[in-house]
Amino acid sequence: MDCTIVKIGGSIIDSPEQLQRFLQDFASISGAKILVHGGGVMASRLQKALGQQPVMVDGRRVTDEQALKAVVMVYAGWCGKNIVAGLQSLGCSAIGVSGADADLIRAVRRAPVPVDYGYVGDITPESINTDFLTLLLRAGITPVFCAVTHDGCGQLLNTNADTVASCLAAALAQTGHISLTYCFEKDGVLYDKDDDSSVIPEISSGMYRSLRSEGRIAAGMIPKLDNAFAALRNGVSEITVTHARSLLSGKGTKIIL
Amino acid sequence: MDCTIVKIGGSIIDSPEQLQRFLQDFASISGAKILVHGGGVMASRLQKALGQQPVMVDGRRVTDEQALKAVVMVYAGWCGKNIVAGLQSLGCSAIGVSGADADLIRAVRRAPVPVDYGYVGDITPESINTDFLTLLLRAGITPVFCAVTHDGCGQLLNTNADTVASCLAAALAQTGHISLTYCFEKDGVLYDKDDDSSVIPEISSGMYRSLRSEGRIAAGMIPKLDNAFAALRNGVSEITVTHARSLLSGKGTKIIL
Repeated sequence: MDCTIVKIGGSIIDSPEQLQRFLQDFASISGAKILVHGGGVMASRLQKALGQQPVMVDGRRVTDEQALKAVVMVYAGWCGKNIVAGLQSLGCSAIGVSGADADLIRAVRRAPVPVDYGYVGDITPESINTDFLTLLLRAGITPVFCAVTHDGCGQLLNTNADTVASCLAAALAQTGHISLTYCFEKDGVLYDKDDDSSVIPEISSGMYRSLRSEGRIAAGMIPKLDNAFAALRNGVSEITVTHARSLLSGKGTKIIL
Repeated sequence: MDCTIVKIGGSIIDSPEQLQRFLQDFASISGAKILVHGGGVMASRLQKALGQQPVMVDGRRVTDEQALKAVVMVYAGWCGKNIVAGLQSLGCSAIGVSGADADLIRAVRRAPVPVDYGYVGDITPESINTDFLTLLLRAGITPVFCAVTHDGCGQLLNTNADTVASCLAAALAQTGHISLTYCFEKDGVLYDKDDDSSVIPEISSGMYRSLRSEGRIAAGMIPKLDNAFAALRNGVSEITVTHARSLLSGKGTKIIL
């Protein structure tokens, strides 16, 4: 079935005003839709309030038992349920889910070498339970995914939200036209990462390889773009990287093969 | 449709061993089933770790903004998603939901007099979205409810888990045979609240009124029993109060009209 998938990043979620504006735009999208959200800024803040020191390696959280607890409480708890309550108030009937719920995303815990990331799960498009996902979408319910999965043996796992979005998109691409938008706090992929106005309107995989080898792509953008190209190769129809306020405008960077 | 509804209390959830044993028993129940869980012990612990002082009036939590955040993080986040992951590992496909999810339970915020409980929501059997609930049950999915609801205007609310269980039971009683079991850390309703062996096998509403006027019913048991009798009057077929380890045994106290 045709579906619009939107990923919203942690720093937008952290601002009640920006989140509210974004949810209004998201709720107005017609047809089947899915929201995937981060929450890393809040999770780090909770870790600090509990006396933990967040540890990141290559922009990814090292998730020991205490970090996992903070991540699950923030992502699946406070962020997810507030987003759902907000969408309900806007007439969009949403349901907040992790990958454990209805076995929607079953992950494989990452091997502890070369870096031991702890309770972190890796997924592929085959990890997605598309049967239950389409049952929800056909019932007019909007799934709101947090970046928590499970291993099928009772263990919750922290999984990158960009990857969740791209795997959902790739899994559903077998069934219809899928549009995937990554919303964050920049206007798109930047040619000069220090110049917010240098948005690249369209980026191909060849252009991406060149820009990356020149060190022009911001570190945080690399996994997002790797995910985006993987999703395109898996049949996703259109992918855009844009600012959260531009969700409906068509502005931003189009990702093409 | 016929359905088994089980409420599990916070102190059982707080013990990984007791919880695991309980989940094994719960997963083995055949047919449609629903789990409702508390988590108050953990929520209070998180509040204290964050420098808050939990405030209870008549055994119910005064839920200011900070307390609500702790409650949602613990109930909908850590407790709910761990229970779901545990059930998945036992071959029971569960989904963790709050009342905000798919508008499953829409509450009314309690008036601030005579006690201002803050972000607390009251519900009735009419608050339940039985359409989506039966859609899940018919799909073979076990809903796992935490004690969080919403007001339909974007506000999450803390709602007593015993009340959630009895309202779910009463709402579904229109459609079939409903069995409701309250599991906690005692063997049933006690005749002498200081003697764990004094379990009353069967308690009627008349007997309950007498025992209560004699001060024999423990304070924490009163809302549970009030909820149970309300559910019976609403057509719920059978109600039992028992220890979590006795879920499958038929032991405990039967509640009759």
